[in-house]
Amino acid sequence: MTEELHWKTAITGVEPNKVRLRGYPIDQLMGKVSFSQAIYLALKGELPSPAVGRLLDAIFVSSVDHGAGPPSVLAARTVASTGAELHACIAAGVLAISRWHGGAIEEGMRLFQAIARLAAANKVSEEAAAADILAEMKTRGERASGFGHRVHTKDPRTQRLFALAEELGLAGPHVRIARTVEKIFRESMGRPLPINVDGAIAAVLCDLGIPAEIGNAFFIIARVPGLVAHIQEERTRMKPMRKIHPSDFEYDGPGEREA
Amino acid sequence: MTEELHWKTAITGVEPNKVRLRGYPIDQLMGKVSFSQAIYLALKGELPSPAVGRLLDAIFVSSVDHGAGPPSVLAARTVASTGAELHACIAAGVLAISRWHGGAIEEGMRLFQAIARLAAANKVSEEAAAADILAEMKTRGERASGFGHRVHTKDPRTQRLFALAEELGLAGPHVRIARTVEKIFRESMGRPLPINVDGAIAAVLCDLGIPAEIGNAFFIIARVPGLVAHIQEERTRMKPMRKIHPSDFEYDGPGEREA
Amino acid sequence: MTEELHWKTAITGVEPNKVRLRGYPIDQLMGKVSFSQAIYLALKGELPSPAVGRLLDAIFVSSVDHGAGPPSVLAARTVASTGAELHACIAAGVLAISRWHGGAIEEGMRLFQAIARLAAANKVSEEAAAADILAEMKTRGERASGFGHRVHTKDPRTQRLFALAEELGLAGPHVRIARTVEKIFRESMGRPLPINVDGAIAAVLCDLGIPAEIGNAFFIIARVPGLVAHIQEERTRMKPMRKIHPSDFEYDGPGEREA
Amino acid sequence: MTEELHWKTAITGVEPNKVRLRGYPIDQLMGKVSFSQAIYLALKGELPSPAVGRLLDAIFVSSVDHGAGPPSVLAARTVASTGAELHACIAAGVLAISRWHGGAIEEGMRLFQAIARLAAANKVSEEAAAADILAEMKTRGERASGFGHRVHTKDPRTQRLFALAEELGLAGPHVRIARTVEKIFRESMGRPLPINVDGAIAAVLCDLGIPAEIGNAFFIIARVPGLVAHIQEERTRMKPMRKIHPSDFEYDGPGEREA
Repeated sequence: MTEELHWKTAITGVEPNKVRLRGYPIDQLMGKVSFSQAIYLALKGELPSPAVGRLLDAIFVSSVDHGAGPPSVLAARTVASTGAELHACIAAGVLAISRWHGGAIEEGMRLFQAIARLAAANKVSEEAAAADILAEMKTRGERASGFGHRVHTKDPRTQRLFALAEELGLAGPHVRIARTVEKIFRESMGRPLPINVDGAIAAVLCDLGIPAEIGNAFFIIARVPGLVAHIQEERTRMKPMRKIHPSDFEYDGPGEREA
Repeated sequence: MTEELHWKTAITGVEPNKVRLRGYPIDQLMGKVSFSQAIYLALKGELPSPAVGRLLDAIFVSSVDHGAGPPSVLAARTVASTGAELHACIAAGVLAISRWHGGAIEEGMRLFQAIARLAAANKVSEEAAAADILAEMKTRGERASGFGHRVHTKDPRTQRLFALAEELGLAGPHVRIARTVEKIFRESMGRPLPINVDGAIAAVLCDLGIPAEIGNAFFIIARVPGLVAHIQEERTRMKPMRKIHPSDFEYDGPGEREA
Repeated sequence: MTEELHWKTAITGVEPNKVRLRGYPIDQLMGKVSFSQAIYLALKGELPSPAVGRLLDAIFVSSVDHGAGPPSVLAARTVASTGAELHACIAAGVLAISRWHGGAIEEGMRLFQAIARLAAANKVSEEAAAADILAEMKTRGERASGFGHRVHTKDPRTQRLFALAEELGLAGPHVRIARTVEKIFRESMGRPLPINVDGAIAAVLCDLGIPAEIGNAFFIIARVPGLVAHIQEERTRMKPMRKIHPSDFEYDGPGEREA
Repeated sequence: MTEELHWKTAITGVEPNKVRLRGYPIDQLMGKVSFSQAIYLALKGELPSPAVGRLLDAIFVSSVDHGAGPPSVLAARTVASTGAELHACIAAGVLAISRWHGGAIEEGMRLFQAIARLAAANKVSEEAAAADILAEMKTRGERASGFGHRVHTKDPRTQRLFALAEELGLAGPHVRIARTVEKIFRESMGRPLPINVDGAIAAVLCDLGIPAEIGNAFFIIARVPGLVAHIQEERTRMKPMRKIHPSDFEYDGPGEREA
């Protein structure tokens, strides 16, 4: 074999008794940084401040689970009901996180970034740039991802995420642009289209410098634990091969309580 | 349709403008609990103490990434190199986390639990119970999962995880049993078989009351972000359809640094 | 790199302008052998007779699709409804072909082979061996895979497959054993448990010399085209993100017609 | 629940002891039509002639396996080496059939259809339409899918497939267009770009009336059996967790033989 296949990677260096993530010995990170900080380090290459870690924690917490109805949960439960192993059930759930389910984060990020770029390029206000882009999208029959929700008219998770971003000093131009877009919808349309949790996450991830093409990864990372909870419930509480109704279910867990 | 398909779930309740995970409004959890605490809440049904949250953080941090060589990374990169979407690459990586890769956590948990049960049932010491079970396994030609490593003879992550568990007052009988097993190997065999990071995680998860059948989920949850980092590097740094050598690669990221 | 990774494969040899499957130039196979014969060649290493090809055709035809209710179809449609790409939808469907769905073929094969082995080893009749093994299974609370069906009390596909196997001179000891098992159930139980299509396929595959561990592969190979038909119907006829009821659907295609 | 979820499907009707694919009782199809004909019936809704069945057989045979190097094989083997179950290995392989691997069929179909449409719309020759579209693609820096190959300069499978299509009277305008494109490449470029097997399949599928969006399905359907052969070889011949070299392997199966 003379074919040259040698390649390089900048993520993790491994030597006997040493594993270094982006240069940091993993055993030194353990106990010092949170899982969320380590995720950022893996993806961006630099260790984030504890403040960024806390904001990421809030993002991941916001998306751990949204109930039994989303297609990712139904796909994972359907596979679990056939007696498949854990990893197969998780993989099926992840495959259902796609354009129409979870995809709003990446699309929202691209929208906010496009508005920021246009405002900078044309030296106009973000509001003018946003109005232009939204008008164009309307012409093409496209709707803005990250706004409006079938169930939640005023998503409490959006409010909380933006409040935290402000508190931690991490709200930047993209959070501002997201609010501008919401304002344009409210003022120029009969029906308001409030920022939903996907739109809020999109704005905050942009301000944290995450590239749009891995925006959906944050949703997938957050949701895998929720999928595991559903898979485990399916296995331990339900009969194999039951017919899984996609909406006729009720919550029978603990009543409302305070953290 | 008269078929009765109504079903119940105890994970998340959803009403307009309210999403409650195990009874806790998610917007109230945001900013108050870490991602790791929310994962435990989703899986176990109760909010863990901050100490448990910190120990879980250490577990997840320890397993975010172990370099480019594991099959999950190679499977994810192979799929990424064909131009597939993010979720397909992640799913392929997750499918490679199976019996021989990541599976040691669940098997280690079952071993430690079996020793604890036998000691209690027979009213013998944990050491005697462990010796019995290991002798039986030897007869059947089985090896103990969670001990020994091809590369790391003294895994610094094991030391760190056990030290943290002690510090936080969370090391219990299963950590003790893991050390007993290690001692038996050391004393009765020429070549020592130190607890590896999978074995250490197994012991700690047992002490945290996690059921063995979702033990591997902790590895999968931890590793998905690492897979995303590799997928993103494959997409942005490598040529499509390259031949991915499974071991002839080198790390060219930042030099060793301190957290 | 001095690590020796060179390896060997006996499936397909590739040289410039030559692709040979198990030694046969693929371009020479094209037009001469059927897809089913090529599948057997790939899996077993030898080209089967046209008669075997016809019997395999019947097996694959029998399992192309069984309607919209099976979990593999629901998983594939659920993923399709999120806007995912074709390969992701197929993969999710394949992941749902597991222990309780499709798994009966492998388990049935193991049962028939166990009976054949016991009869040979103990020099007893197949009926005596079958009665022994079924009695043991009853004691352990196990049920025999490949017998009985929730919907079909007399599966016409079973009759047809066995008739074809006889006609083609390919019915052997395992088909005979399957019938023996059915007879034991009928005579010793109030409720008859007829051989279902999975059990019939299991018996025929044993007689064709297929190893049990790839028995389920025949079901997966047969079913992938059916999954594609459902994915395509979901994409072209249904709204994205619809709630997919697992049983409240009706067939509105062409009325009964003759081949 | 008053939500109306009733839905309709035109693929398979199921009643007790009756399963009808597109109206045909499956037990009547068994023994009468080939697997390839049943695949066409499932996907297109009508039973094809035996001639179409034979041409489809040739397409599927041509793509059953192309050796151990393609990413789908490497992904499936990588997952198999971790001890995963058959369906998980197959799913990982299917996930690797994507844009750069297998995707040429769908893209080729779209190219040939675009040329046919342009020729009809502008009432120009297919050659003129093809030249126009190829010139535009060149301007945009796009390359035509289905032409050229790294290893095979004169793909014998292409010749065979087109010869069969002619023989069976099934070669139509899209096969002609494919040849026209090849001719333009040959005459206007230094280096010839012969039609490869993906391009040939694309042309024939267009002439058979298959929609482009399921073009890749034919490759996936054909390749699943090949993946199973590799998975089975990996499991039975190789050590678990071996490092799988992506190109340093050799064929050691039967020598060249005639069908």
